[in-house]
Amino acid sequence: MRMVDLIAKKRDGKELSTEEINFIIQGYTQGEIPDYQVSALAMSIFFQDMTERERADLTMAMVHSGDTIDLSAIEGVKVDKHSTGGVGDTTTLVLAPLVAALDIPVAKMSGRGLGHTGGTIDKLEAIAGFHVEISKDEFVELVNRSKIAVVGQSGNLTPADKKLYALRDVTATVNSIPLIASSIMSKKIAAGSDAIVLDVKTGAGAFMKTVDDAKELAHAMVSIGNNVGRKTMAVISDMSQPLGLAIGNSLEVKEAIDTLRGEGPEDLEELCLALGSQMVFLAGKADSLEDAKEKLKEVIRNGKALEKFKEFIANQGGDASVVDHPERLPQAQYLIEVPAKQDGVVAEIVADEIGTAAMLLGAGRATKESEIDLAVGLMLNKKVGDAVQKGDSLVTIHANREDVAQVLEKIYANIRIADHAEAPVLIYGTVTE
Amino acid sequence: MRMVDLIAKKRDGKELSTEEINFIIQGYTQGEIPDYQVSALAMSIFFQDMTERERADLTMAMVHSGDTIDLSAIEGVKVDKHSTGGVGDTTTLVLAPLVAALDIPVAKMSGRGLGHTGGTIDKLEAIAGFHVEISKDEFVELVNRSKIAVVGQSGNLTPADKKLYALRDVTATVNSIPLIASSIMSKKIAAGSDAIVLDVKTGAGAFMKTVDDAKELAHAMVSIGNNVGRKTMAVISDMSQPLGLAIGNSLEVKEAIDTLRGEGPEDLEELCLALGSQMVFLAGKADSLEDAKEKLKEVIRNGKALEKFKEFIANQGGDASVVDHPERLPQAQYLIEVPAKQDGVVAEIVADEIGTAAMLLGAGRATKESEIDLAVGLMLNKKVGDAVQKGDSLVTIHANREDVAQVLEKIYANIRIADHAEAPVLIYGTVTE
Repeated sequence: MRMVDLIAKKRDGKELSTEEINFIIQGYTQGEIPDYQVSALAMSIFFQDMTERERADLTMAMVHSGDTIDLSAIEGVKVDKHSTGGVGDTTTLVLAPLVAALDIPVAKMSGRGLGHTGGTIDKLEAIAGFHVEISKDEFVELVNRSKIAVVGQSGNLTPADKKLYALRDVTATVNSIPLIASSIMSKKIAAGSDAIVLDVKTGAGAFMKTVDDAKELAHAMVSIGNNVGRKTMAVISDMSQPLGLAIGNSLEVKEAIDTLRGEGPEDLEELCLALGSQMVFLAGKADSLEDAKEKLKEVIRNGKALEKFKEFIANQGGDASVVDHPERLPQAQYLIEVPAKQDGVVAEIVADEIGTAAMLLGAGRATKESEIDLAVGLMLNKKVGDAVQKGDSLVTIHANREDVAQVLEKIYANIRIADHAEAPVLIYGTVTE
Repeated sequence: MRMVDLIAKKRDGKELSTEEINFIIQGYTQGEIPDYQVSALAMSIFFQDMTERERADLTMAMVHSGDTIDLSAIEGVKVDKHSTGGVGDTTTLVLAPLVAALDIPVAKMSGRGLGHTGGTIDKLEAIAGFHVEISKDEFVELVNRSKIAVVGQSGNLTPADKKLYALRDVTATVNSIPLIASSIMSKKIAAGSDAIVLDVKTGAGAFMKTVDDAKELAHAMVSIGNNVGRKTMAVISDMSQPLGLAIGNSLEVKEAIDTLRGEGPEDLEELCLALGSQMVFLAGKADSLEDAKEKLKEVIRNGKALEKFKEFIANQGGDASVVDHPERLPQAQYLIEVPAKQDGVVAEIVADEIGTAAMLLGAGRATKESEIDLAVGLMLNKKVGDAVQKGDSLVTIHANREDVAQVLEKIYANIRIADHAEAPVLIYGTVTE
């Protein structure tokens, strides 16, 4: 088998066999096939696409390129949730205890990563004492006992995907549905869960700018999951404006607590119920998505979800009293209001730009070396569709420095006030096959 | 400027600016832009093509990546001829003295190269004493005096093309009209001629298998030439069967002599007159292609063409007596006939396979290290459309070994005899813009 012939085959729109895809991924991981051939193949895939079979094969070839996590020691159906990424996305912090409260095992592996705010682990570390440095045995024991634990990523998962992603990033081949879908799904599958729920974001703050693109990606990922024996569902959700009101680590922990108490922002609660319903349904703990949603509402109402969050925090060394006393989370030194300059209705809050404003305060990492300030961030006081009067606070800046001129400028440039506007659709649909 | 953005631009079907194309080719030549980005760009060009302007810019960027030859010390309009390559193609040996006999300067730089038979220099070296190791001054002086000289390639011409071609070869991006056309034209333009005549081959023995593809390539090259100020024309000619009758170095020298005497194979003479007419016309030595053709026929008839060949050989140290005594060229030890196994009409002589049969005898180089045997080769006794009777010799093998079983097998497998067949069209058209 010669790589140049396989590039030509895909270039000409033909289907690569399982054996051929394995040859490519193994050879690339081992350094036997050079970058310049793989980038030409990736560009061919960009133009010629891949069939469902090829996508599943590519995903599994990448899964088998490195370590895989074995969660079989954990009882029950392990359901993982993945978001394609957005701004102010507090869903994981809400969903983990919410679902665990229904006796569904949440064995979460998480990272830090770059972005507008920290990753799930960074956010949880806003709680004094909380740590993710636990052994594999402890992790399994915790999930079996409390149905919830979070651990830092370890092992050499999907090295082929890491190498391929880095190459795609510099060869203009990131934006290809089969390559995006297999990249995400390979990581989720290698992480060992039995079922996967996907939150595919769309809008200014998302990778997929249009609803159609988001749907196509969701279908691609759900199809891969189901083709390789992992039950998979997806929700298409809006990321034209930030989700919820909080953008920042401590601020999002508090927002998660509010939501678990039934007092969170409406959009965040609605999305958590939609994603949570799919998790509960795939875990086999409900007969329908509607049934699942009722069960989730019940554990919010009766306080079990909030109790589960406390138990989870305590299990991993954290100060669970923050749940009842969120003022014990790191607090910023300065609260600065951003008043509206005119009357009207909020017509646009450009998600990614507002996220960048939070990062400028120190809420997220611009590079791997950046230090995160867990206290800082933004609280939106208005969302798209809300009426405002001149002087109303649009946003409260939580800062640890007085000079926020650059942040203020970015906020004003990315919140548009008009005569009329309506709140955007939050959930554009669910994808189950 | 970032290469990844330029790849994305071409991927999305947009036009690259002159500045952008120069940035890419300079960066690649200097090793600042890596292979993996250039292969992704090449694949984008495969799918999205290039405009005429982009093609001309790419060509000139490659020309300027290395040395260029200055032929300004040679008087008159220097016209170069280039063939896209075929089997038994003796046109250069015929055209050089034929055109020079009309006082048109032929300042030929030539190579050895790989293939079924040797390059032009290998063929000329079948003449005892002939050598191409002459100084630049001697080369110019010879052309100015005799209108004809051949010299070996020197200097670092179009290094960008060499690097890009090697990359395309292993990334399935060879087969792209803008990339093929700019590659060929950059080499011709760097070699310094004022005008260029192209022989674009089509059929089994050619790179372009269909007439439509050959026409597209011809138009692409003619357009590049005219856009960068080099008058360019092309002939589309058949290479489904070998051109002429001889395939081998000495054999082709003899065939060239026959043709210059007006006694060569009909197809070779016809193609030489077609290409020669364009050369004479572009050199400004005739008012029309028809007029040019008449002038060429005249120097064949009156013996001036043959005299010019003798002068050329003597100028470069060769034994000019071979023109009148071709038996003084290297002769093979064994002549082996290949009899037809049935009555009928020759329906097919697969050019590239028959060329490979000649190479197996030692007429060409399989690798750069191979030694050429100048005496060996094949003489076709029949061509497509010719009637044969069982036992008639189809081919005479000129060999320096007795065991030619493998060659025989290849010849039989690639000459098909049927009930009916017609000679193929030789010239499919001329392209002048």
